[in-house]
Amino acid sequence: MKKSLAYFFAKEKALKEKGEKVLGFTLISPEFPPPASLEENMTRLYPRSFSYSTSGGDFALRDTLASFYSKKWSQPLKRENVFVGNGGKESLFILLQILLKKGGEAIVISPYWSSYPRMVASTPGKLKIFKTSEKNGFYPDVKKLAKEITSKTKVLILNTPCNPTGKILKEEDVKFLAELSKKKNFFIISDEVYEIYDYEGYYSSFLKFFNKNIFCVFSASKSFSLCGWRLGWGFGEKKLIEEMADYQSNLSTSPHTLSQLVIKEFFEKPEALSLHFDTNKKEAKARRDMAASFLAGKNISYILPEGGIAICVKIPPSFKDTYAFAEALLSEEKVSVAPGEIFGQKNYFRMNLSLPVEDIKEGLNRIAKFYSNK
Amino acid sequence: MKKSLAYFFAKEKALKEKGEKVLGFTLISPEFPPPASLEENMTRLYPRSFSYSTSGGDFALRDTLASFYSKKWSQPLKRENVFVGNGGKESLFILLQILLKKGGEAIVISPYWSSYPRMVASTPGKLKIFKTSEKNGFYPDVKKLAKEITSKTKVLILNTPCNPTGKILKEEDVKFLAELSKKKNFFIISDEVYEIYDYEGYYSSFLKFFNKNIFCVFSASKSFSLCGWRLGWGFGEKKLIEEMADYQSNLSTSPHTLSQLVIKEFFEKPEALSLHFDTNKKEAKARRDMAASFLAGKNISYILPEGGIAICVKIPPSFKDTYAFAEALLSEEKVSVAPGEIFGQKNYFRMNLSLPVEDIKEGLNRIAKFYSNK
Repeated sequence: MKKSLAYFFAKEKALKEKGEKVLGFTLISPEFPPPASLEENMTRLYPRSFSYSTSGGDFALRDTLASFYSKKWSQPLKRENVFVGNGGKESLFILLQILLKKGGEAIVISPYWSSYPRMVASTPGKLKIFKTSEKNGFYPDVKKLAKEITSKTKVLILNTPCNPTGKILKEEDVKFLAELSKKKNFFIISDEVYEIYDYEGYYSSFLKFFNKNIFCVFSASKSFSLCGWRLGWGFGEKKLIEEMADYQSNLSTSPHTLSQLVIKEFFEKPEALSLHFDTNKKEAKARRDMAASFLAGKNISYILPEGGIAICVKIPPSFKDTYAFAEALLSEEKVSVAPGEIFGQKNYFRMNLSLPVEDIKEGLNRIAKFYSNK
Repeated sequence: MKKSLAYFFAKEKALKEKGEKVLGFTLISPEFPPPASLEENMTRLYPRSFSYSTSGGDFALRDTLASFYSKKWSQPLKRENVFVGNGGKESLFILLQILLKKGGEAIVISPYWSSYPRMVASTPGKLKIFKTSEKNGFYPDVKKLAKEITSKTKVLILNTPCNPTGKILKEEDVKFLAELSKKKNFFIISDEVYEIYDYEGYYSSFLKFFNKNIFCVFSASKSFSLCGWRLGWGFGEKKLIEEMADYQSNLSTSPHTLSQLVIKEFFEKPEALSLHFDTNKKEAKARRDMAASFLAGKNISYILPEGGIAICVKIPPSFKDTYAFAEALLSEEKVSVAPGEIFGQKNYFRMNLSLPVEDIKEGLNRIAKFYSNK
């Protein structure tokens, strides 16, 4: 339990419950407001919220999502291509259970989102870590990556924009890997839950180069700041989606009905949606810029995020690892962050940047004070 | 896909979407109204619904549940004993992944809820079916059952009130099995999601005889008719609960925040809660009595449910199996039911009884018409 994000998040919550002035940057739970129509949609739709929906997601929501992403990425996606889960996480979990049920290798790029290795560990599959280098800002060298793909490779897990590094795969690399997945017959899971947080215009979805070996995942947690509403959706080949829906029917039956009804409404108003995404992106970019310039001013090293809503910051050399750093920071300054080792990186911690500006400023000040004493 | 409940439910939904007058008795999704305070609670609490909760469930909800069930069953349960999941199903799924991660035998009593064998199949564990006999109305002989428990037995899955049979374990049998679990050191999972539907006063929870080898599960789907709100909770030993929370953190992060906030409110008003439970039980009993006397009048065999909200009805001998029966009934009479083979029983189908009385009457009439032609 000690080494998980849940451990640090639970510790943060427990301190808050005691009345401590903890600043929590552990999880990435965006604090930007959800769409303004949420309350009205919820109140209007809740009489239809009582029953189960279909496993794999409500058909009407799947139609809406297929239509939206088809237009966005010029792909003929249909309801049969859509899977809806209790969060993007459940979708990924189920997919990995299916793809790795007979074993095989899953390649995960480091630094990685902490759940990938742990999800792979819950299957008969074998984890293979592909390391990126600090001097490239943790951007993966796709030509080197291609060489690691062998007949044993069942699945390659990608994350663009990447959590925790904030790196975004360039379109040429997305295209290259998508074509490789067909040629070498392995599966790509592209986790694109941070799709709306693209600060330099680098982001291109694997949906643009969609084929039967690709599954892309998105979520309400990140796109609508509705982490607590536990909804995610993904696109894949029809037969796979059917298998996923069947697996879900024995895990959680179906996603939350009210969450599905409400999120469907958002996608049916493309103009309001686009405005919502733009506003949140602008807000997030301002926070990224502020944090980056603050850290630069204090001579604290960090990786400039091209996307996502977090920043990776280098720990002082006096700490033996990021766990020790995070424990000390929490106990001395009441600032909770995510230790980099959880992401496979022992010199950086991750800090959530999608919090109120005042909290980020206060958090950064406490962090700078902590650094100055180490 | 063909043999799952999801298949029949999806077929039922697709026909409804086409405008067909389908009567759907496939899933058990209670149609009794949820507590009247739901809308007010939802509207008041939704501003707190945006963030993740803690893995394993919100601490305040866990306190409330521990206190309620402690009083009800005279057990000193604490928040550390409570796990909250996306439905009772997610709790069961996670628990089985943990208990059977190194293999071992899981005993399931037939007729069984269809998800048990499928959940066991998704673990390294081995399924062992214990059959009950039709002449005992499918009530398990616990002395015989005890003889099946060997050193290989890791877990015994019980379901009281039972879905699909409606049988309830007598208190002396609950006590006997709870004690046996300590003596022979195996684990009991007691699925008690139908706790409120107890028509003869037979029901006793395993919580009454709680020990570290017992886990009991309950759900908002059945207790509050809030299937679409995906919430379930269970009680077990502290270390196990921690392991479950950690597993959940990589599966779905945490349960739906708004669902947790709303259900907490229900449990904090014990008088209103008790009235709600009594009203729904009375409504459900009236439907059971009506269905039983209708079927008896038509000389159609059935198992009288002592609890739960469904009834098992014997198919005409002219059908080779319950799949063929269910497919024919749906296509000829537009009545969708759950084939018994999904529950390990080839002569009975299951019919949900928690629907509006008019729908049940119309459904029973169509079924009787169908029988008279076979």
